[in-house]
Amino acid sequence: MTITITAFERSPDGGRGLARDTRVRWALEEVGLPYEVRPVSFAAMKQPAHLALHPFGQIPTYEEGGLALFETGAIVFHIASRHEGLLPADADARARAITWMFAALNTVEPPILELVTARILEADKPWSRERLPLVEDRIRARLRPLSARLAKAGWLDGAFSAGDLMMVSVLLRLRASGLLDEFPDLAAYVARGEARPAYRRAFEAQWALNNGGSPSA
Amino acid sequence: MTITITAFERSPDGGRGLARDTRVRWALEEVGLPYEVRPVSFAAMKQPAHLALHPFGQIPTYEEGGLALFETGAIVFHIASRHEGLLPADADARARAITWMFAALNTVEPPILELVTARILEADKPWSRERLPLVEDRIRARLRPLSARLAKAGWLDGAFSAGDLMMVSVLLRLRASGLLDEFPDLAAYVARGEARPAYRRAFEAQWALNNGGSPSA
Repeated sequence: MTITITAFERSPDGGRGLARDTRVRWALEEVGLPYEVRPVSFAAMKQPAHLALHPFGQIPTYEEGGLALFETGAIVFHIASRHEGLLPADADARARAITWMFAALNTVEPPILELVTARILEADKPWSRERLPLVEDRIRARLRPLSARLAKAGWLDGAFSAGDLMMVSVLLRLRASGLLDEFPDLAAYVARGEARPAYRRAFEAQWALNNGGSPSA
Repeated sequence: MTITITAFERSPDGGRGLARDTRVRWALEEVGLPYEVRPVSFAAMKQPAHLALHPFGQIPTYEEGGLALFETGAIVFHIASRHEGLLPADADARARAITWMFAALNTVEPPILELVTARILEADKPWSRERLPLVEDRIRARLRPLSARLAKAGWLDGAFSAGDLMMVSVLLRLRASGLLDEFPDLAAYVARGEARPAYRRAFEAQWALNNGGSPSA
């Protein structure tokens, strides 16, 4: 059954891999599933055909036969629960890996989204400069315990899992801010994620869509 | 096997049901599982014993035999995937219900968390008054498509599921802001959730912990 995902026709990040389709591509590459990509313009994203797939008018979406999903957490979980490579077989270890997926999306990403909003949507506001350090401090409060944990281990709970895939993807959004470099153990963790062949393939595919070639070309 | 969850010894909301243990209690009540509650003080939450259960030093946590979980999304999913009543049996419908869990936690809740932060942590800042409407508009952008969907249906995807449990729990945090009342279909949806006997039992149990009696007493 063909898997089709949607991605930005032109990603706002120009192919730096921060758009959310990269997470889904990465998961598909980890388990070795082929997939097709349907690029969507910003205008088309708000039209009924796309809204029928994604009520909030975003990317990515995931289609497989009659099934249509949105939300990267749900899509990655769907892939991980049906194919080997992203979730441990042991029931308790599996529940813990799923916990880290939710921790990435509901505990670590929200303050990072706030920073993105502060830097983009509120950049020209009079409070921007004074407020930014407060937002960054709230991110540091999440990074500190995460960093302490990863100082002692390569991945969050034993072997690499969908929890790591999601956490690395979320942390990658911090690179430009310099916050990641304040926590060398986290920076090394993210680098371990990026070094995985499946991540490289996912990154190169989204880069090619945005730039029409290979990143090393 | 005894299930033990943690909750605030004294919830900052005084028992209005907005602390995250209510979500877990609700799920346990929906599937009819008994559980015990261990109240944790703010000081204890940052001590090694609790941090071993929850690396970010929050509540709730979930213990069942040798398994320890945190993150309400993961806990509710763990309960829902092992007991009937919160996830449909059909595989596709199940994947869609899980999608709504992630949508609640990663698409709808982040701007709501921003509002909580703006109202509490940044209430005394000089920009507070001018910035609040911007934050509220970002929430409205999420509520609008959700409301349109719920105008036509009782629950998000057919029967009540863990997706609705999570979405109602997230939306409940908006009640005090008045934003929910701008969307009558959403307000009615939240009221449907609150009217469920399992929610009532969960609410009353957390109220009793905070107030030492029944809410109607």
